Amino acid sequence: MFDALGFIAAKRDGYSHSTSELAQFVMALTRGDIPDYQTSAWLMAARLNGLTAEETTALTIAMRDSGVLVRAAERLAGPTLDKHSTGGVGDKTTLIVTPILVACGLKLLKMSGRGLGITGGTIDKLESIPGFRTALTPEQAVHQANEIGSAIISTSPDLAPADGLLYALRNATATVDSIPLIAASIMSKKLAVGAQTILLDVKVGGGAFMPSLDAGRQLAGRMIEIGRQTGITTSAVITDMDIPLGRCVGNSLEVREAIELLLHPEAADHRLLNLCTYLVTHALIITGIAKTQDEALQKMTNAVSSGTAAGALLRMIHAQGGPDSLPAVLSTLRQADVVQPVMADTSGRIHHIDANRVGQISLDMGAGRRTKQSSLDYAAGIEFVCGHGSTVHAGDIIAYLHYSNDHKENATTWTAQMRASISIQPSNINWTDRPVILDTL
Amino acid sequence: MFDALGFIAAKRDGYSHSTSELAQFVMALTRGDIPDYQTSAWLMAARLNGLTAEETTALTIAMRDSGVLVRAAERLAGPTLDKHSTGGVGDKTTLIVTPILVACGLKLLKMSGRGLGITGGTIDKLESIPGFRTALTPEQAVHQANEIGSAIISTSPDLAPADGLLYALRNATATVDSIPLIAASIMSKKLAVGAQTILLDVKVGGGAFMPSLDAGRQLAGRMIEIGRQTGITTSAVITDMDIPLGRCVGNSLEVREAIELLLHPEAADHRLLNLCTYLVTHALIITGIAKTQDEALQKMTNAVSSGTAAGALLRMIHAQGGPDSLPAVLSTLRQADVVQPVMADTSGRIHHIDANRVGQISLDMGAGRRTKQSSLDYAAGIEFVCGHGSTVHAGDIIAYLHYSNDHKENATTWTAQMRASISIQPSNINWTDRPVILDTL
Repeated sequence: MFDALGFIAAKRDGYSHSTSELAQFVMALTRGDIPDYQTSAWLMAARLNGLTAEETTALTIAMRDSGVLVRAAERLAGPTLDKHSTGGVGDKTTLIVTPILVACGLKLLKMSGRGLGITGGTIDKLESIPGFRTALTPEQAVHQANEIGSAIISTSPDLAPADGLLYALRNATATVDSIPLIAASIMSKKLAVGAQTILLDVKVGGGAFMPSLDAGRQLAGRMIEIGRQTGITTSAVITDMDIPLGRCVGNSLEVREAIELLLHPEAADHRLLNLCTYLVTHALIITGIAKTQDEALQKMTNAVSSGTAAGALLRMIHAQGGPDSLPAVLSTLRQADVVQPVMADTSGRIHHIDANRVGQISLDMGAGRRTKQSSLDYAAGIEFVCGHGSTVHAGDIIAYLHYSNDHKENATTWTAQMRASISIQPSNINWTDRPVILDTL
Repeated sequence: MFDALGFIAAKRDGYSHSTSELAQFVMALTRGDIPDYQTSAWLMAARLNGLTAEETTALTIAMRDSGVLVRAAERLAGPTLDKHSTGGVGDKTTLIVTPILVACGLKLLKMSGRGLGITGGTIDKLESIPGFRTALTPEQAVHQANEIGSAIISTSPDLAPADGLLYALRNATATVDSIPLIAASIMSKKLAVGAQTILLDVKVGGGAFMPSLDAGRQLAGRMIEIGRQTGITTSAVITDMDIPLGRCVGNSLEVREAIELLLHPEAADHRLLNLCTYLVTHALIITGIAKTQDEALQKMTNAVSSGTAAGALLRMIHAQGGPDSLPAVLSTLRQADVVQPVMADTSGRIHHIDANRVGQISLDMGAGRRTKQSSLDYAAGIEFVCGHGSTVHAGDIIAYLHYSNDHKENATTWTAQMRASISIQPSNINWTDRPVILDTL
């Protein structure tokens, strides 16, 4: 019989739990033996009094072991990698990085979540492709990744079920923003999939969950420590999320941007391309596929220019129920009822685009979920035709709003909000590019 | 629609709630609109981040207003007083102080709780009198107190129901030991009864809920502030609870000791008599019945020596279903199967009796409840034949254990524990009496 009251009191009083106590807690939780009101009292105590690195690792391992283990490293033929982003506005890097890495010889079996709030989810983006199935079983995903190199499926309820129970309560009790609890939640699911190597993209800034570089470093540090303690090579790249990533925000629009980057990288948004290049080359080095940055870059360039990367993406889309050619994918993506230009009201250079505000507009348009129950408009979103550092003239089109006829009455408000989210400065004010890679741990 | 998530987040982040937010919270809670897991997350945030004096008062008023109001001050003919003890080992003062105050002209309508853990409850003690009914309605209690001066009934679920909801969750989530939440819980029920004057006996030490004088002063200060803000004359006496109060611990035994004190005060335990005298005279002064300590003491002496106080206790016992004479009450009290002496194993003076240990032994014997569901053995308990400061010789009887035949196998353990809880020092070591009254606020 687990002593829930003593467990809560210990954390209330600032004590550290032992590995065995945390394992017993997670077992009792998973069996349904702890009432929600006790779990939520513990969550608040943990949110306010913290968890040590040792406690975080022990909690993560217990959560990993609360359900089935996929054992990707053992069951996939070839070096395995799992890539995870903490989420941001316009973040479609998984759709780009995955097929490039497959083209370079890695196996990727990824379980991904749906978006909530201003940050999008990879599963939502993929489901915007008509026919695309994300509800594969882990067995089916293992089979597919062995056949064609990759599979991206929605999180299985059989994996780390304790995480699902804790997350639902955290969401309802204002205990989401705890670095140890976030680290344990992410890593428990990654460890249950069980790739050899984990690459984490920790996003910081107004368009991300972590507000500051310091908070991002803390989260990354905790996750790397969990990887170290469990023998999984884990690396974290901390990246800027103050500016929307790439030109498009919205599900179908982002799939289009990802495919176009693989087909025509020379025309891509420079910050998005820089980030994908960094993630790919870093992944090739930490998995041992490349020995140097130059070798990694050469492998990536070959994978993209030969069309192998685009082919790997197509094979995954087709295997999971989508069309059998990339032009067909692009032509089946849903189009919004209204595509309305937003014009610059002044001339100058774009010094900043506020990712948080852009994310909020996109959410209002129906591209994201306010609550878990919200339905999505896959076609809705924002398409920028210029970016950070672009020179514009008053009257130039700077972006298009894609929205449904149901939202016509909001167009004026959104246009004004879009203008307010883009800072255009006179050309005599110095502009400096803003790095997208902030740190690597 | 109450924003429970925002309310929890505000306390998590250390902000103060407004009076209106707390009123809305308590209304939503009472309506059943807030899931327990959200309430318990808030309770832990409040336990760890605290509540200001203003928040505590606002919470108390909202809890008072969550149910019916008895309005004792308006409905009883005469000056009204409510006396509350935070509970201790051997604390039967309510049974003694109430009839003396009635004999001095006060009206007392008291709602009281059952005991939990080592501290006893007045309702349990009264129910050890065969026939005694505590489940009177507030209406019946008002009528009785108007007729005969007093009524002591069990807490009505219609009074401050929000307190009942919060208390049940606090008990299950390790959030009981919060001074603002304790103050709000006690005072919300007192205010719902609505006497003109409240006298609080805040007990501190090993045999009480509050461990230290400092904690006791904080709790007393909060409750007095609530009284001040609601226009109720409130005074708190902080009293020692490191040593059991009086000679008996256990329900029937304590009723017997209370009756015997009223009949033969000269033979009573000196610390119990000192405390009752202080509480009575202080109550007479704060209610304006007496102007000076001397006048108050004279009134008390008259009330006891004339037999009016004992008569007032008898009238209440008889009105609530008990026998019609005090000798009949004493003879109907249940007797334990076994009454076993505990002998001193050394000679000297009793320097200390450990109230916590004595409370634990009494709990083991069945005199108290481990959980709300535990049943009581009214006859069980401990009877000291000597007290703090008594001189004893090895082999003297120092106490009797009263227990049921079911517990025969524990007798050796209890005897050893009793000896360990009584510190007998050689007579050449200086003994000083230990004051029972520590502070008055």
